[in-house]
Amino acid sequence: MQSREAYGKLLAWSRELAHLGTTMGLLHWDQRTHIPPKGHDNRAEQIATLARIHHQRETDPRAGEWLAAVEGTDLVTEPESAEAVNVREWRRSYDKAVKIPESLAVALAKAQAHGQSAWEKAKPQSDWAAFQPSLVELVGLRKEQAEVLGYEHEAYDALLDDYEPGAKAAEIEPVFRALRVATVKLLDRLRDLEQPKTVVVGKDYPLIDQERACMAVAARLGYDLEAGRLDTTMHPFSTCIGPGDARITTSYDPQDFTDALFSVVHEAGHAMYSQGQPKEHHGTPRGEYASLSVHESQSRMWENFVGRSPGFWAFFQPYFQMIFPALRDVSAHDAQRWVSRVQPGYIRVQADELTYNLHVMLRFDLELAVMRGKLGVADLPEAWDGKMQDYLGLKPPCHAKGVMQDVHWSGGLFGYFPTYTLGNIYAAQFFAAAQQELGDMGDMFARGEFAPLLGWLRREIHSRGKTLLARDLVQRVTGQEPDARYLVEHLTARCERAYYL
Amino acid sequence: MQSREAYGKLLAWSRELAHLGTTMGLLHWDQRTHIPPKGHDNRAEQIATLARIHHQRETDPRAGEWLAAVEGTDLVTEPESAEAVNVREWRRSYDKAVKIPESLAVALAKAQAHGQSAWEKAKPQSDWAAFQPSLVELVGLRKEQAEVLGYEHEAYDALLDDYEPGAKAAEIEPVFRALRVATVKLLDRLRDLEQPKTVVVGKDYPLIDQERACMAVAARLGYDLEAGRLDTTMHPFSTCIGPGDARITTSYDPQDFTDALFSVVHEAGHAMYSQGQPKEHHGTPRGEYASLSVHESQSRMWENFVGRSPGFWAFFQPYFQMIFPALRDVSAHDAQRWVSRVQPGYIRVQADELTYNLHVMLRFDLELAVMRGKLGVADLPEAWDGKMQDYLGLKPPCHAKGVMQDVHWSGGLFGYFPTYTLGNIYAAQFFAAAQQELGDMGDMFARGEFAPLLGWLRREIHSRGKTLLARDLVQRVTGQEPDARYLVEHLTARCERAYYL
Repeated sequence: MQSREAYGKLLAWSRELAHLGTTMGLLHWDQRTHIPPKGHDNRAEQIATLARIHHQRETDPRAGEWLAAVEGTDLVTEPESAEAVNVREWRRSYDKAVKIPESLAVALAKAQAHGQSAWEKAKPQSDWAAFQPSLVELVGLRKEQAEVLGYEHEAYDALLDDYEPGAKAAEIEPVFRALRVATVKLLDRLRDLEQPKTVVVGKDYPLIDQERACMAVAARLGYDLEAGRLDTTMHPFSTCIGPGDARITTSYDPQDFTDALFSVVHEAGHAMYSQGQPKEHHGTPRGEYASLSVHESQSRMWENFVGRSPGFWAFFQPYFQMIFPALRDVSAHDAQRWVSRVQPGYIRVQADELTYNLHVMLRFDLELAVMRGKLGVADLPEAWDGKMQDYLGLKPPCHAKGVMQDVHWSGGLFGYFPTYTLGNIYAAQFFAAAQQELGDMGDMFARGEFAPLLGWLRREIHSRGKTLLARDLVQRVTGQEPDARYLVEHLTARCERAYYL
Repeated sequence: MQSREAYGKLLAWSRELAHLGTTMGLLHWDQRTHIPPKGHDNRAEQIATLARIHHQRETDPRAGEWLAAVEGTDLVTEPESAEAVNVREWRRSYDKAVKIPESLAVALAKAQAHGQSAWEKAKPQSDWAAFQPSLVELVGLRKEQAEVLGYEHEAYDALLDDYEPGAKAAEIEPVFRALRVATVKLLDRLRDLEQPKTVVVGKDYPLIDQERACMAVAARLGYDLEAGRLDTTMHPFSTCIGPGDARITTSYDPQDFTDALFSVVHEAGHAMYSQGQPKEHHGTPRGEYASLSVHESQSRMWENFVGRSPGFWAFFQPYFQMIFPALRDVSAHDAQRWVSRVQPGYIRVQADELTYNLHVMLRFDLELAVMRGKLGVADLPEAWDGKMQDYLGLKPPCHAKGVMQDVHWSGGLFGYFPTYTLGNIYAAQFFAAAQQELGDMGDMFARGEFAPLLGWLRREIHSRGKTLLARDLVQRVTGQEPDARYLVEHLTARCERAYYL
């Protein structure tokens, strides 16, 4: 078969997989937003059916033949051409998909389902012993999976590759170490300082007004509501159903409107990345996001570098005051200080901007130790509590607020956590690079001008799709290797401002 | 292969097709309720992908082998067993699916898409000449399809079979003729009589209150809102996403709350049929609706035999008066008379209960004449206007309000229209049979008791799935062949009451 013809077959194959994937996305979205209570059983069957068809098509042996007919030909000589990028990524995902024997895939799917329901049952009772066997089984299967997939340095990398193509634990470790040391040092400087005044929470924010305010903010930042929508869910998320359809959700705290505000800005950051991907390449790697960490760099940039900035509050606070009478006497300065406060706690998802990364690094350390065989699953609770003491100076009152708080491990998602902090690190590097080109963005934000930043992100990151892997993208856009220095500088400046240091 | 094993394969095959089908249902539902404006192009691609996969699986040659291994075996000797019913219907749909060559399927899909967009463009200008070529092509292709599918008596039956398995035009004609003669006679009796007082329309009905009232009525009738939901769309519809998930939609007229009320009761009638189907047979014909006409018999029974009845209004009018102050001085009697009024008009979807069937029969007559080669497509407008004069005494002012008003023909849906009036006829027969067993339901309705009727429908119709074809179901449940007499009696009594005859 001619390479051009084979490439055409691969394009059709890839687009079909994408449509199946985004249709599963809609099944999930509907399940969390609009499904009637009695519809859940059937929804699980629909999702299982589509997942099965997706897997069958993904491992179609003809795709292997088409790839062989294209690789090494003239069509893919230019490494950053759409053809070369697509063939590179198709090969990566195809090889991974066909390497996993069906018996392992089935065992993993079952263990994940059991793990999640065991966790859901055990967590409210803080009952580690009831959850541990499921986790032991999952760790065993994921180690087996890593061996089947193969790796250059260590087993953990094989799992990491699912979320962060090409990343290596050994490359992440020094970057995280630098961040951890600086963070703990900064935390020490803040200890015993007076907290910013509580000026926002504990007031009355009608939900309908919160929704209106969140939509208005998201639209002003650049989220295209003609190509998205906002719904209410228990846990906020964003999902891309396809070009022109990147949806976000949030939850509302009736006494603290910044809860919804920051989750909407965060999810809108994800969705703007989706909205910026090149439509003509939809359904192929060239039109996809680079990695989870790059996705997170976008959401965290909008949430923290924009949403918690003094400029943002200078611009939006008068608007918030109009919508929420409770804020009439709260200045932009006081509000911004309040949303910049640092307060070590047990729970990752409630953590402030500074301590959040300590929570993530703790998980990364532990799952890496488990995968390296240096820590047994049974020893996780003790190791967790020890690290909490070291990093945050806190001892969790129970496992539900400690080692059992997150859903990820119960679903076997080892290798996922580090993408959160990588996202923060990349956000800081990207933001610094944007600032270098665009000039000081604080003044722009204070004038309500967010388009220059979005335009820069579109050009430098969104439009590139998966052309470059995350590390290479950081290198290309910023001229530097991944480096925690920019994040440390940003956090230091923010804390110094909030605490008058 | 053993018949039992083959049957198991067929079950899995059938359930996979069902999950693909209901997933397409969700894609469509979302497209009409929540999709952002820019998401439509991608949605068309998602639907096309799933339709293609559905067709590939539906025509899987192994299904033909499995069917051959089951047919004629002990497994299917009892004709009303789940096994026999499923094999009978799988054979029907499989044979039809494999008979259509791909070239014809593609040509039809294209002609349907072109026909619909031509109609959408031409209708506002009432431009028949612009639409005619598309319709000529569609009629040609549908005739070709009928020949490929084969038929006993005439080509029309092959198309009708898609919507009404086993039905024959020649059997429908005499039933419709009797109804038409009686309807025209009844219309003559009403001519020049004073209309019921306009007591409902032209008032102020806040949309939020309309929605609340509609939900309350639907729930009271027996629509399980834990297994369904109500959304707002341009055109009301119902869709079953699977067991436990039968959704309805409506539109709202701010000046006439009965517009939404009757559409919700109608769609809830469809949805209650879905909710009553045996869950254990979901994904197989035994767990499906019998036919479109039986589906319509349920929606029309709840809309007209229940929703427009004096008992319904006696029970609900005090509640409506509480919600809508505008109705405070409107008696149940006057409201019920108003919703029973007869007023011949041009538009089918706006027609009253009596003249509605004349609209349907007109379309049936014309499409039958076209398929029989007795009428050319070019002659449709003149024939339409002539029949409007004969049946309703009206001449449409333009084609947009005449031959071009409905979307069906532009999508090639010949054979669909008769199911509307068959549904009304069956509703009357079923209702009479229910009344014979349960006693006078007027008093029950006036006490707000709708469960006895729903229970009867569950037992006699819903729980049977596709065990019996529509005609056989009517015969089994009512002891009689399809007969318009019961509908005529009902309409006569309703008009005599509304017009004090």
